[in-house]
Amino acid sequence: MAVSEQRADGEAMCPYRLVLEHVTSRWGVLVLIALRERPHRFSELRRAIGRVSEKMLTQTLQTLERDGLVHRDAKPVIPPRVDYSLTALGREAAEQVAALAGWTERCMDAVLDARRAYDETRAAAGRGNAQART
Amino acid sequence: MAVSEQRADGEAMCPYRLVLEHVTSRWGVLVLIALRERPHRFSELRRAIGRVSEKMLTQTLQTLERDGLVHRDAKPVIPPRVDYSLTALGREAAEQVAALAGWTERCMDAVLDARRAYDETRAAAGRGNAQART
Repeated sequence: MAVSEQRADGEAMCPYRLVLEHVTSRWGVLVLIALRERPHRFSELRRAIGRVSEKMLTQTLQTLERDGLVHRDAKPVIPPRVDYSLTALGREAAEQVAALAGWTERCMDAVLDARRAYDETRAAAGRGNAQART
Repeated sequence: MAVSEQRADGEAMCPYRLVLEHVTSRWGVLVLIALRERPHRFSELRRAIGRVSEKMLTQTLQTLERDGLVHRDAKPVIPPRVDYSLTALGREAAEQVAALAGWTERCMDAVLDARRAYDETRAAAGRGNAQART
């Protein structure tokens, strides 16, 4: 679920749908949750999130900045220093997303049990059909 | 963001990530919100959601059923009747998703303003660069 790839078709059709996709995207969720604690520099964010490429993190931050959720503060110093923080709107998004992500993590055992039961039922039905054919 | 296409790579890596993608997928959101009101038959769901193909709605319902969020009740009557409803876990998911979707809709004016300002700043910077080069 890349943050930017669906911009072209989706934005005109259903603009609020895209905000939902941005804030619930793989890296969007992690950026919002990291920035909820405190502002981060780019390199700090990369370390905090892990496994994200520089390009994907840049795209994610640009998308969230464009949506007005993340504030980018480039200080004219040498070496250059760029801090990312949440706007007021971004803070609201981060609270909602953190609640949903937290719920998702808490319910994982129940979901994994449900998947196992579902797959076993399907497999048993498959065996039943195979026997009926012989 | 198709509901099922990322199952192969994502499930082993980060299982709770996928539940988040299922409940925030384009049709997943709308199914959960529709079922939050009351159980629906398949054809009722299709009408309630609109614009969804039979195939995509089937896939979405199967994914949510496998996650233990949606209950499928097939009654052995003629003509066949299938009702979909939320499980207790699905109700929790639906509340969270409805809150996030509601927030997304309410904040759209602010997001559209932010996007306009961002694009204008970028365009102005582009013009500035072009002038500097001439």
